Amino acid sequence: MARGLNRVFLIGALATRPDMRYTPAGLAILDLTLAGQDLLLSDNGGEREVSWYHRVRLLGRQAEMWGDLLDQGQLVFVEGRLEYRQWEKEGERRSELQIRADFLDPLDDRGKERAEDSRGQPRLRAALNQVFLMGNLTRDPELRYTPQGTAVARLGLAVNERRQGAEERTHFVEVQAWRDLAEWAAELRKGDGLFVIGRLVNDSWTSSSGERRFQTRVEALRLERPTRGPAQAGGSRS
Amino acid sequence: MARGLNRVFLIGALATRPDMRYTPAGLAILDLTLAGQDLLLSDNGGEREVSWYHRVRLLGRQAEMWGDLLDQGQLVFVEGRLEYRQWEKEGERRSELQIRADFLDPLDDRGKERAEDSRGQPRLRAALNQVFLMGNLTRDPELRYTPQGTAVARLGLAVNERRQGAEERTHFVEVQAWRDLAEWAAELRKGDGLFVIGRLVNDSWTSSSGERRFQTRVEALRLERPTRGPAQAGGSRS
Repeated sequence: MARGLNRVFLIGALATRPDMRYTPAGLAILDLTLAGQDLLLSDNGGEREVSWYHRVRLLGRQAEMWGDLLDQGQLVFVEGRLEYRQWEKEGERRSELQIRADFLDPLDDRGKERAEDSRGQPRLRAALNQVFLMGNLTRDPELRYTPQGTAVARLGLAVNERRQGAEERTHFVEVQAWRDLAEWAAELRKGDGLFVIGRLVNDSWTSSSGERRFQTRVEALRLERPTRGPAQAGGSRS
Repeated sequence: MARGLNRVFLIGALATRPDMRYTPAGLAILDLTLAGQDLLLSDNGGEREVSWYHRVRLLGRQAEMWGDLLDQGQLVFVEGRLEYRQWEKEGERRSELQIRADFLDPLDDRGKERAEDSRGQPRLRAALNQVFLMGNLTRDPELRYTPQGTAVARLGLAVNERRQGAEERTHFVEVQAWRDLAEWAAELRKGDGLFVIGRLVNDSWTSSSGERRFQTRVEALRLERPTRGPAQAGGSRS
């Protein structure tokens, strides 16, 4: 099994004033909506700005430290990871991939540009949106072509996490790749190791019960295939 | 003080067969020379390839795991950090900034291109060379202009590290910024917090005693200024 790597780096503007609350057990939870615009290079050499809004959760001491100090529009740097959670709602299995901040750092905004959306919420231009992952494929990739003939592959990645003094956990992440990356990825098979550098994006859709659903997934920028090296090495590597 | 952040991500080819040895105390040390070429965007919209060779050190269990399995040319992913060391040699104070790998993952090379240097050593094209740092400036920045009028700033960054069960350590990193980044950085002062995303580069020079010296430093790609947020918050943040 490939070792687990799971690191998120985000810089954006707080779209709204963050939401602070406490669990009955007294754990502080700070939920932020971070908003930014990524500058992406198009195939034809041009650039395009792609907007994003990501909910980020901060727990405990870090949440308490920042809870009252952050306002709408504040620029922040978040270092964290992706956290997969599943639960039951009305007998139905539900899951989500949360962005969990381990650290938050407010940033000075001199010289930085914000855009404003239709609700008057700020987004940071030239934001940062980067995730590093390593894990194993949970299924064979699905390769398709858009009507324009652009290749797109969807991959399921299982990222293992070993925490000191806690059980091993697995985080399930959906990864999408386009064009050359999609055709490279299509050669992989269930169980293969995969290293991903990508951007976090949001998918939204309407469920069969008419409910609006959201899913955080990864758009691949770079893919690599971890191997065991030239010789066959036995045993776990993580 | 800004909290310490210190993460290195490299993908390159092993320029030579790695060097494995043991200290008298039995600690395994694996020294690798990783070689790659970064694709950088020029101001005029073009691209240029910039080569690098970085020595990377892996210790202990990870070193023993990979020691015998890696050959010249093998593609590897390294996740690690920058480690500052100082010592005395013949009464003279010497220091170096080492690249310390926490994890190494060999990668499959299908579809990947290597270049060959004049010594027949391979370098990986479209390599990965990225460092994330946060720390405080050790001095006021030095801003200069090249004969062509290009702004360049040199910054000294102190990155704190807190290890569980070990003393707090400080890693001193030289950071260089160009053009707009240099002029932005010139406004900073000794003691200010700084967040850096950059590439690792090597400086080499000849000392007054005729010895060839090398220094690993960081070329900035992005700079941000961590603040304490809108309200004055007292106390340490890390």
